[in-house]
Amino acid sequence: MAYKDNYPSKLLEEAVDAISSLPGVGRRSALRLALHLLKQPQENVHHFAKSIVNLRDEVRYCRECRMISDEDICSICADKSRDHNLICVVETVRDVMSIENTGQYHGIYHVLGGIISPINGVGPSDLTIRELVHRVSSAMDEGEGNRKLEVILALSGDVEGETTSFYIYRQLSQYDVKVTSLARGLGFGDDLEYADELTLGRSIVNRQEFRP
Amino acid sequence: MAYKDNYPSKLLEEAVDAISSLPGVGRRSALRLALHLLKQPQENVHHFAKSIVNLRDEVRYCRECRMISDEDICSICADKSRDHNLICVVETVRDVMSIENTGQYHGIYHVLGGIISPINGVGPSDLTIRELVHRVSSAMDEGEGNRKLEVILALSGDVEGETTSFYIYRQLSQYDVKVTSLARGLGFGDDLEYADELTLGRSIVNRQEFRP
Repeated sequence: MAYKDNYPSKLLEEAVDAISSLPGVGRRSALRLALHLLKQPQENVHHFAKSIVNLRDEVRYCRECRMISDEDICSICADKSRDHNLICVVETVRDVMSIENTGQYHGIYHVLGGIISPINGVGPSDLTIRELVHRVSSAMDEGEGNRKLEVILALSGDVEGETTSFYIYRQLSQYDVKVTSLARGLGFGDDLEYADELTLGRSIVNRQEFRP
Repeated sequence: MAYKDNYPSKLLEEAVDAISSLPGVGRRSALRLALHLLKQPQENVHHFAKSIVNLRDEVRYCRECRMISDEDICSICADKSRDHNLICVVETVRDVMSIENTGQYHGIYHVLGGIISPINGVGPSDLTIRELVHRVSSAMDEGEGNRKLEVILALSGDVEGETTSFYIYRQLSQYDVKVTSLARGLGFGDDLEYADELTLGRSIVNRQEFRP
């Protein structure tokens, strides 16, 4: 049953409007959340609102990799123990967090801030591709040609991801850098029976030496 | 896979902490929502936070029925065309909205603000039961004994709801009012096969005359 938008209070209705503007939150859930907030101590609600406003107003992005950061340079870029010859290109901040959580990567990142998508009106100039090319170019200059740089394209496997990967690959072709992309195949623990044909097909073509 | 709470920014972490304090919102969803808000125009985020703070700071409750209201007296209590001899007692503001949405009720309400629950430390004095008794008593005095008042106990059917109903019933027994409760039985369209035994049993005992 849908609520007929019959709110007993304008204030409540406005709060529900605001909360239901969040992705994946319907008006019913929004009402539940608004009434929950109403029952909380006033200072908690103020703290809740303030932490969101603070995030939006005061957030900064790393000058190097465009990752969310509290400093000019993020903790990953500032970490001298990480491999600065390995740049992993990702779409979003969340992707960085996901890869960091694997504990398997010790290079640095470059956050594009999106993906090339003509349908959504996102072109190369809306992303940080120019900054990536500039980073690569500066790094090569620094190393005076002796630097072995690798750029890993860790974008999604759909058409938009492939398009973006290809665009970046072309932009970097003028430099002497190794460009790689994520391994694709069956997930660990996946059952052959349930794999889609494309993934299974690629897994066979790109088969790897068995290392027990 | 759980996030290992490895946030790139303190501001982001604080916002995620705040958002994930909402019921039914995990840290993963909270991160998604925080990053969504980060991409919105600054004024939208300010408006979002402000509408929540406004609700908490400025909300009022109807002097009569304790329903959320922008005025001293809510629109339902102020509506002279409604039957003021019919008081429907409910647990929450949402219950009022649910019953209003049925379009089947034309009396007024009384919002308890909760339910008697010793486990959660909620006793009769934490609810608006005294106010309900006072309303009934005043109404009877006004009518000089000629008023036919009915109090409908529309509380949930669990032990706490039954306890609260019984407590209110006892409190009202000193007045000449009719006390009723919601009809319970199979839902419309329910299949006998899937009904629980208690509901089905009660449905048989409380069977009604067939009115085609």
